[in-house]
Amino acid sequence: MTDPTGTTDTTTTVDERKGVSRRRLFGAVGAGAALAGAGALVGRATAAEPPFSHADVVAFRGEHQAGVVTPAQDRMHFVAFDVTTKSREELEALLKKWTVMAERMTAGEEATPDGAIGDGLYVPPSDTGEALGLAASQLTLTIGFGPSLFDDRFGFASKKPAALEELPHFRADNLDPARSGGDIAIQACANDPQVAVHAIRNLARVAFGTASVRWSQLGFGRTSSTSTTQDTPRNLFGFKDGTNNIKAEETDVVDENVWVAYGDDQPWMAGGTYLVARRIRMLIEQWDRTVLGEQERVIGRSKGSGAPLSGKAEFDELDLDSKKGHDPVIDVDAHVRLASAQELGGIQILRRGYNFTDGSDGFGHLDAGLFFIAYCRNPQEQFVPMQLNLSRNDAMNEYIQHVGSALFVCPPGLAEGQYWGQGLFT
Amino acid sequence: MTDPTGTTDTTTTVDERKGVSRRRLFGAVGAGAALAGAGALVGRATAAEPPFSHADVVAFRGEHQAGVVTPAQDRMHFVAFDVTTKSREELEALLKKWTVMAERMTAGEEATPDGAIGDGLYVPPSDTGEALGLAASQLTLTIGFGPSLFDDRFGFASKKPAALEELPHFRADNLDPARSGGDIAIQACANDPQVAVHAIRNLARVAFGTASVRWSQLGFGRTSSTSTTQDTPRNLFGFKDGTNNIKAEETDVVDENVWVAYGDDQPWMAGGTYLVARRIRMLIEQWDRTVLGEQERVIGRSKGSGAPLSGKAEFDELDLDSKKGHDPVIDVDAHVRLASAQELGGIQILRRGYNFTDGSDGFGHLDAGLFFIAYCRNPQEQFVPMQLNLSRNDAMNEYIQHVGSALFVCPPGLAEGQYWGQGLFT
Repeated sequence: MTDPTGTTDTTTTVDERKGVSRRRLFGAVGAGAALAGAGALVGRATAAEPPFSHADVVAFRGEHQAGVVTPAQDRMHFVAFDVTTKSREELEALLKKWTVMAERMTAGEEATPDGAIGDGLYVPPSDTGEALGLAASQLTLTIGFGPSLFDDRFGFASKKPAALEELPHFRADNLDPARSGGDIAIQACANDPQVAVHAIRNLARVAFGTASVRWSQLGFGRTSSTSTTQDTPRNLFGFKDGTNNIKAEETDVVDENVWVAYGDDQPWMAGGTYLVARRIRMLIEQWDRTVLGEQERVIGRSKGSGAPLSGKAEFDELDLDSKKGHDPVIDVDAHVRLASAQELGGIQILRRGYNFTDGSDGFGHLDAGLFFIAYCRNPQEQFVPMQLNLSRNDAMNEYIQHVGSALFVCPPGLAEGQYWGQGLFT
Repeated sequence: MTDPTGTTDTTTTVDERKGVSRRRLFGAVGAGAALAGAGALVGRATAAEPPFSHADVVAFRGEHQAGVVTPAQDRMHFVAFDVTTKSREELEALLKKWTVMAERMTAGEEATPDGAIGDGLYVPPSDTGEALGLAASQLTLTIGFGPSLFDDRFGFASKKPAALEELPHFRADNLDPARSGGDIAIQACANDPQVAVHAIRNLARVAFGTASVRWSQLGFGRTSSTSTTQDTPRNLFGFKDGTNNIKAEETDVVDENVWVAYGDDQPWMAGGTYLVARRIRMLIEQWDRTVLGEQERVIGRSKGSGAPLSGKAEFDELDLDSKKGHDPVIDVDAHVRLASAQELGGIQILRRGYNFTDGSDGFGHLDAGLFFIAYCRNPQEQFVPMQLNLSRNDAMNEYIQHVGSALFVCPPGLAEGQYWGQGLFT
């Protein structure tokens, strides 16, 4: 992505680092943009980011589910459910009900036609009301089904995709079962967190007796861009994250790496994808005591511009062969090297994660990190080999710990009249 | 507050409830406002709310601390510290360092002059970097000191204000010590959550060895307006919250109820205030199964418009004597009655709370609620009698549980050259 305005300097030398505060510079650009009536809506001060309206609606139905290549919204609420009924009919009824509610809420409507006040005084309101007055905020709701849903409870065993195998144990995984797994996941993304929370809450509410919340995660800031129209945001290590992410506009790359094709696996999920979720606690106190040179060695990029250490600008190509004397410029254990398509025989995934901060850990530290979400066409052939490589070798492992993990298969998008998970029942 | 545009209908009858979706109506208004270039910045779809720029800077120095009557920003990160040093000098040095950093960050600058990349490769960066490129976002940082800071460690016993007594036990309190108390609190509010989190993280970071995080809380949506320029937001019960809140524009009311005057107490804190924080878990599943009439009886207001049950529009005055037959229109145990100035002999407080959702509780429910923050001139004469009344009688108690509590004294604002807590050391 280039900067058409020329106002954002994406290269930084050590000398330049001593100059004007980068943040102040960006801030000034943002203020100018605000006065000019553009760029102010997104809460980012860089001029390259386009404005969006909180009122924008993302289409609910289509070939693929929304919330995958949709330009990443600013906030997220993610929930995993355990199905508590043993009745296939009750589960199907819930999925039908959820579909109607989800379509309404993504359109900026209340969860039900009568809503928070329309049913009258003598029944519990059918919408919880906290989104009254709030716009659609680009809400997307994306559903996925975990491996456990395909056990013998509902007769789905024959529908189970081959690639929906539980993820293997990765070195140094320290997974909390209470933050892992789940029969069904719903990812709510929106530009207003109250809209995302409202959506999950109302879906969870009507699930009473059929499914219950296993775990949930609030993400306060996106850590990836999924469109060339978006700036690259920063994660809590302070680095730009997802520069080399797959972008929605690269439709060939998306088709090759994200969407399941006919013939890949179960016919019911053609046009779908797989969702990998990993709650990655960042040991920010250790990180913050590390010198800048080491941080940049670990990541393989410059902290200021996001440029690979082998280049000058953020979107310069990774040159893994570049040397300084006898040493590689990008360390052999650098995160960008180990996660790169070059290193992994062409593997690419679509990252769509969020920063989180969940209070404190009881030891004087913030419980903060990255809620990693990736979409891919086959997790066993994409995420697993990538994470095996990272978990064994990534220099970043000294500063992170994977504490939650889940895998879900996401069905394709819905045509008119279809409901979530219909392919499982027919 | 009246609605000058006339587009927002603030009265609702049972008949009207069956009409157009309220949310849709509001959404349409918001979209129109966005096209007209106003009202879109705040993520609220009602036309009455003014635009703000994420680039806006709130002045750090002044007669009073910012973040009290400052129009409530959309997001919050609140932290309470335990001071771990026994050295008065180290504590003073930290407060001086914090002051410099806080002033810089509220101006949209990095925490330090050299920042995330300006120190060079061979030292740990002095700013953690995740706010690079983000604007000031109306960040305010507000400091307070807990009763425990005035023990015998630092020689502050003679400086302790009389009103800084630990809060009494209130009926049904179920307080978690790990979410209560603290020697020092810092409230960070901003319109971009990453800016608020960045500020708290950098302040916590430099406290290493002097103070450590005791607890922290992220709030995703404001639940009060503190200015007549703001719409009343909704809490997670789906009701408008804080309609009768003190507003910054009512300067006489603010002076009478929020700011400590000379002669009230310790001279060092004139111009200051007290901060009461209560983490209030909402039992949203119970609430959501309650009929609308009961919800409105418990609150004392109409869910749609926010009007008191004795009136027609949100800002109609509470008429506590209004009767329907022999029964009071506003129930004797209604929350608005028990918390009203009329009921409490004129007591008013400035509420400035936030909605929270912190994952799940392990029992299939969302851990959600209200992080209540109140500012008042004397907590023993304002918050304590109010909460005694509420904790004994409030019909809402069936649906909430107070699980965290803390009280802090907030010093006055800073003149040029002054630092946080200077009044304690001189």
